[in-house]
Amino acid sequence: MIQPEGSLPVLLPKGFRFSTAKAGIKASGRADLAFVQACAGTTAAALFTKNKVVAAPVSVGRVSLTRTRGHVRAVIVNSGNANCATGVPGLRACKKICDEVGRLLDVRREEVFPSSTGVIGVPLPTEKIMPALPGLVSGSAATEDAFRQFAHAILTTDTQAKISAGSFHVGNKKVTIAGVAKGAGMIHPQLATMLVYVFTDVAASPAELKRSLTQACRESFNCISIDGDTSTNDTVLLLASGESGASLADPMVRQEFNDGLTSICQSLSRQIVADGEGVQHVIRLHIEQARSRKEALAVAQAISRSLLVKTAWAGADPNWGRILAAIGASGLPIDPDRVDIFIGKQKVCRSGVNYPFNESHAHSELAKPESDIKVRLRRGSSSLTFLTTDLTVEYVRVNADYST
Amino acid sequence: MIQPEGSLPVLLPKGFRFSTAKAGIKASGRADLAFVQACAGTTAAALFTKNKVVAAPVSVGRVSLTRTRGHVRAVIVNSGNANCATGVPGLRACKKICDEVGRLLDVRREEVFPSSTGVIGVPLPTEKIMPALPGLVSGSAATEDAFRQFAHAILTTDTQAKISAGSFHVGNKKVTIAGVAKGAGMIHPQLATMLVYVFTDVAASPAELKRSLTQACRESFNCISIDGDTSTNDTVLLLASGESGASLADPMVRQEFNDGLTSICQSLSRQIVADGEGVQHVIRLHIEQARSRKEALAVAQAISRSLLVKTAWAGADPNWGRILAAIGASGLPIDPDRVDIFIGKQKVCRSGVNYPFNESHAHSELAKPESDIKVRLRRGSSSLTFLTTDLTVEYVRVNADYST
Repeated sequence: MIQPEGSLPVLLPKGFRFSTAKAGIKASGRADLAFVQACAGTTAAALFTKNKVVAAPVSVGRVSLTRTRGHVRAVIVNSGNANCATGVPGLRACKKICDEVGRLLDVRREEVFPSSTGVIGVPLPTEKIMPALPGLVSGSAATEDAFRQFAHAILTTDTQAKISAGSFHVGNKKVTIAGVAKGAGMIHPQLATMLVYVFTDVAASPAELKRSLTQACRESFNCISIDGDTSTNDTVLLLASGESGASLADPMVRQEFNDGLTSICQSLSRQIVADGEGVQHVIRLHIEQARSRKEALAVAQAISRSLLVKTAWAGADPNWGRILAAIGASGLPIDPDRVDIFIGKQKVCRSGVNYPFNESHAHSELAKPESDIKVRLRRGSSSLTFLTTDLTVEYVRVNADYST
Repeated sequence: MIQPEGSLPVLLPKGFRFSTAKAGIKASGRADLAFVQACAGTTAAALFTKNKVVAAPVSVGRVSLTRTRGHVRAVIVNSGNANCATGVPGLRACKKICDEVGRLLDVRREEVFPSSTGVIGVPLPTEKIMPALPGLVSGSAATEDAFRQFAHAILTTDTQAKISAGSFHVGNKKVTIAGVAKGAGMIHPQLATMLVYVFTDVAASPAELKRSLTQACRESFNCISIDGDTSTNDTVLLLASGESGASLADPMVRQEFNDGLTSICQSLSRQIVADGEGVQHVIRLHIEQARSRKEALAVAQAISRSLLVKTAWAGADPNWGRILAAIGASGLPIDPDRVDIFIGKQKVCRSGVNYPFNESHAHSELAKPESDIKVRLRRGSSSLTFLTTDLTVEYVRVNADYST
């Protein structure tokens, strides 16, 4: 049974070692390199941003995974620089780092999976990164402390590390899953400036992992939005060492594993949204009675993208008219005359028209750190819960600071 | 020749009388009713919001224009309440007001064109509006002062009235065009919480007016964005009294009129954007070498919708990577590797890659009240200039104030 809410101590899957370093990429002087070494035979699946502008490490990592047919021996992440819109020199810089890690570990360059996050359009300072690599490789450890440091080193404007882990038993075998994430800005479905690494000791083929990961992401990272922007660097990587001896080919293991992976991804999603830039209120947006899941998702995205809706939430303002207007402006074939809207348990709009409600109760509901808004479309039977946030003065401050 | 920048005195077209009243709809106690009486024979054309959620006056006005085949004898506008998401009672309230104005003027109810702007989902207080109608009708005047008061009475969160007027001569006939607008929030292409009334004394059929208005809007109101939201109440109404004696059927008149109408709509657009909620910087976004005008518009909309781009502009931050990422996330078939970006006259990105530039000059350029950003797609020969704005702390404050 998975305990995904990051309770101490973190359970670590067997087969992984972690380390971090301060290379001076971040002006703050904080750790900005994070390294994972995976044991021989580790399989991998990854999902990437759908932005057409992709960072060099996304291009390189995608090709590498294809070349190795889903095998990874190491992950090298830098924070503070996205290595995006850096052209051919950016690709060369990324490969140079993977080459060096591969050389130090005596594995192929393609078995080293790269990630970057941070400012776009600035050349990656390889001269700062290269000298730190030997220490990262020699200093890695399979300890909770090293894992936690890894979770911190991948952050940018996040205010806290995001960790979720758990384990389950099948027969006498114990399978552990542990994940870390970074988020903070550019968070919108189809992934975001979001790096997620999930480690497990289940034994699985890359294809089995991909199926499980796709399903889990659909129910988690693709149902969140902070600011509607989609990052150039989004990556979700799942690594499986096989060290538990339990196989994903076993239906009982698969069921438990998929449930656990989804729980962990949902926990990381919640942590990402709650720690979004300037977020004061998390909104659980329930879209009900849509014609399809796709339609429900599109409605949720339209609402979560409206500045007028998001600023109303910042003021805990039960201004449901803005929600209705956002649905109407979405271009979707929704009949506004059938839409019901609820704030908390109160109906505030029936069939597209104002419904008498206690405004001060609705205000109190929205003033809570997390609140529920339900939109009933009365078109079908699909439903979806989507996590989104208010838009605050603080978000603008964080993102207007010259120069990022 | 049109002098559209609202220079004093305002030229008034013949055939229109204006008045305003304070009905107590606005909590501030400011004027919230605005009335126009048009002479017999006045023709009309209107464009409305594309939001699926439309306010009662939009539904009523659209049907009325069809029934009268494009003839209008009066316009009644209230500010402070959008009469939207108010159901059948909202439609009844709107018709009741038009009925009463029609009775007072001895014209058909359908010849009275209604508009509302303000909060959504609150019943229209007809009990406040009805008693004010006789005074509006009896007190109207064809004076510049009355016209200016009209421009003020339609405002909501705008900080100033938006007026543009001008005239031209053809032979010994003088044609005048005068327009007023309200904007402030929910401004995005396909019209916005935007009410625009343009008056002229040219003689024209409703069909001729519609062609001229559609063309002028395409080059003005549909090329602006403040916050990406599309209002439920947007209306652009053009009324032609015919009193100048010059006919739009005359090609020389048509050419001058269309140029003048476009200038006036562009001037009102600029005024709307500059007075957007919390706006500190207006950005003239030039999209060049798109495959089509439609593509150029879609790129401009994607950029002007990105919170990360708009907050960077608030900080005068030349973070062009966010612009590139917004294009990449748009779903358009743009090859980021061909995109050039300029801030002011400086190239900052060439073929999707950072291009060395003087950062402090770029910062200064963006710190100006109006600045130019050029995005060259290198895909075709269509171009477009789009007006948009930064997203500031003040925008969030204005829109988060509980309760709107």
